[in-house]
Amino acid sequence: MRLSQLGEFGLIARLERILAQAGATPAAGAVSLGIGDDAALLRPPAGTEIVATIDAVMEEVHFRRDWSKPEDVGWKALAVNVSDLNGMGARPLAALVSIGLPPDVTPAWIERCYRGLAECAAAYGCPLVGGDTVRSPRHIAISVTAIGTVAEGQAVLRSGAQPGDLLCVTGVLGQSAAGYELLAREVRRRPEHAPLLAAHRRPHPPRLAGAVLAEAGLATAMLDLSDGLASDLQHLSQRSGVGVTVEATRLPISDATRQTAKRLELDATTLALHGGEDYELLFTVPPDHWEQAPPALGPLGVVATIIGRVEAAKGPRGVGMIGADERRQPLRPQGFSHFAG
Amino acid sequence: MRLSQLGEFGLIARLERILAQAGATPAAGAVSLGIGDDAALLRPPAGTEIVATIDAVMEEVHFRRDWSKPEDVGWKALAVNVSDLNGMGARPLAALVSIGLPPDVTPAWIERCYRGLAECAAAYGCPLVGGDTVRSPRHIAISVTAIGTVAEGQAVLRSGAQPGDLLCVTGVLGQSAAGYELLAREVRRRPEHAPLLAAHRRPHPPRLAGAVLAEAGLATAMLDLSDGLASDLQHLSQRSGVGVTVEATRLPISDATRQTAKRLELDATTLALHGGEDYELLFTVPPDHWEQAPPALGPLGVVATIIGRVEAAKGPRGVGMIGADERRQPLRPQGFSHFAG
Repeated sequence: MRLSQLGEFGLIARLERILAQAGATPAAGAVSLGIGDDAALLRPPAGTEIVATIDAVMEEVHFRRDWSKPEDVGWKALAVNVSDLNGMGARPLAALVSIGLPPDVTPAWIERCYRGLAECAAAYGCPLVGGDTVRSPRHIAISVTAIGTVAEGQAVLRSGAQPGDLLCVTGVLGQSAAGYELLAREVRRRPEHAPLLAAHRRPHPPRLAGAVLAEAGLATAMLDLSDGLASDLQHLSQRSGVGVTVEATRLPISDATRQTAKRLELDATTLALHGGEDYELLFTVPPDHWEQAPPALGPLGVVATIIGRVEAAKGPRGVGMIGADERRQPLRPQGFSHFAG
Repeated sequence: MRLSQLGEFGLIARLERILAQAGATPAAGAVSLGIGDDAALLRPPAGTEIVATIDAVMEEVHFRRDWSKPEDVGWKALAVNVSDLNGMGARPLAALVSIGLPPDVTPAWIERCYRGLAECAAAYGCPLVGGDTVRSPRHIAISVTAIGTVAEGQAVLRSGAQPGDLLCVTGVLGQSAAGYELLAREVRRRPEHAPLLAAHRRPHPPRLAGAVLAEAGLATAMLDLSDGLASDLQHLSQRSGVGVTVEATRLPISDATRQTAKRLELDATTLALHGGEDYELLFTVPPDHWEQAPPALGPLGVVATIIGRVEAAKGPRGVGMIGADERRQPLRPQGFSHFAG
C-alpha cells in the first residue's frame, strides 16, 4: 500500500496501535494522557526537576535506508535522546517524535520504524506519548524529544569537574565509528563486524548508568559521548574551566574494533577519540569516590574505565593526551561536524 | 558567509546569543538550566502537570523560502506548538527546537529564523531552552517541542464535550487559508490582503485564552484549530462521543476574507470550514457558563463566538452544518491532509 492511499489519519491510527502494543509501560501514574489529544500530560514525581532534550536524525546525514533497517532507524532516533538524559543523570519519563515522510516511503517502512521506536521506548522505560507525522519533500526527517526527571539539584552538569578528579568513561569507544567505516567501504562481512555494525545502527546507551552515578553523588561532571571523545572533552574542559589529560593506553577499545581498524588500515585510537556516536558516558569523579563506582554500575552491566584526570586550567591547559611516547600533546577535536564543508 | 565556513559550533554560539538577547524571560525559577548542556532543566510550579507537544514544519510543505521571511518561518514553527498548549488549557513553560539545514542556507537566514523563534518565545513567554542543529540534505526541517504546565486535573481534553454544550471558537476563521491562496495564485497585493498574509505567515494563537478558559472551569472540551474546523470538529465529536451541529451563518469570517474569497471566486465559508491553520481555539461550554466567557477573554483581547451546539450522539449523528436553507447536512473534513496523494 502506498502512503497516499492510507492518508494521514489512517497512518496515525496504525502507529498508535504499534505504540500501544509495544508495552513501554510508563512509571506508575507518570503519564496521565498519551497520544490522541493536542498534547500529552505527564505527572513527574514530587521533588523532581524536568530534564528535556531534542535531537534530530536526517536521512543521508545520520542514516541511510540501504544501511539500516527501519527498526534500527527508529531505535536510534530515540536512543540518542535517551543518551542525553543519561548524560544529565536523569531517569526517562516520556518521549515525543515528529517524523517527516517523503512520498516514496511505504507504510510498511514507517510501521517498522515505529516498531523500533517502541522497542527502544520499552527497553529504556521511555514511552512515546506524542507525535507529529508530516509530509517531507524528499528525505526522512525524525526529531525526538525525550523528557526525564532528576531529583531537585541532583542533575550532573558539564560544568562541575574539579582539578584532581578522575576522568572516566563507560563501555568501549570507537565501535560505532568502526561500524560506520565498514558500511561506508562496503567491506565483506566477518563475524567480528557484528558488534560494530550494531553499535552504529542500534546504539545502546548504558541504561540508568547516569541516574545511578547522579543519585549516588559520585559524578562531579557528566555528559554523553556523541560528538567524539576529543570533542566532548573540549565541552567538559570549557564548561568546567579545567584542563584534562587522557592517557591513550587507557582508552577502552574492543578487540573487534582493533582488528577491524587494522584491516581497514585505520588507527583504533583515532576511532575512539574522534569517531563519535558512542552514546556512552563521560564523567569525572573525585579519587576518594571512585571505588564506589564499579559496584554501583556493575548491577546495570556497565563497566567504567579511568582514562585520565582533571587538572587546574592554569597548569597544562585545555585538553591533552599522553601517547605511547609518554609526552603530553594537545588533543584537538576532529569529530564529525555538521556543515564542515 | 557560507555555513561551511562557520561550522556547527560557531553557528550554535551565534544562535545562543540571539536567544539570550531576545529576552524571552521564563517564569521566575522555571528554567534552572537552558541551552549549553546535554539537556535543559525545568522546575514546573508545584501542583501542576506537564503538558508536552511536538510539531514539525517542513520546507515546501509548510513554508516556502520565497513566500515567507526567515523570521516568519521561525515564528510559525514555535507558534503552532504554543497553539497546542493553548488547546489543552496550559501555560507555556519552555520550548526546544531541532533544525535541519541544507548546504544552501546562509548563516544570515538561520539567524533571522532564530530571531523569529525568539520573538515568538518572548511574545508567549515560552523561552527556548534547548536545540539541535543538524545538516539536512536538501530541505529545511524544523521541529519544535513546547512544554507547558496546567494545574493538576485541570487540562481540557477533546473528550469532555456534553450534549447541550455550546460550540465556540475564538477569533476569525479562514484568514490563513485566504492568505495561502493569495500566495499560491501570485495575486497582486491589495491593502485588505495584509491580515490574511500575516495570518498565514505569522499566526498568533490567542495568548493564554486556553489557560483562562481552563482555570475558570468554563470549557468542557477544547482543542486548537489546525487541520480546519470541519476536521477538528470530527476529532471533538469522536473523542467526546457526541454529535455537533454548526450554523453556517454564525461562522466568524472577516471582511477581508470575504472580499478576497469573492475576488478569487472562492467560497469564504469553505475557507473557514476546511482551510486550516487558524490556530484559534475550538471549545465547548455549558450554556449557563457561557456568559462568563466574554469577560474572561476580553482582557486578553480575545473574542469568542458561538458557532453551534453539541448534541447526543444518538440524535443527529456526527458532525453537521445548518446552511442558508436551514437544513442540516453532514459536514465532512476536506482539510489539508498530509499524504493525500
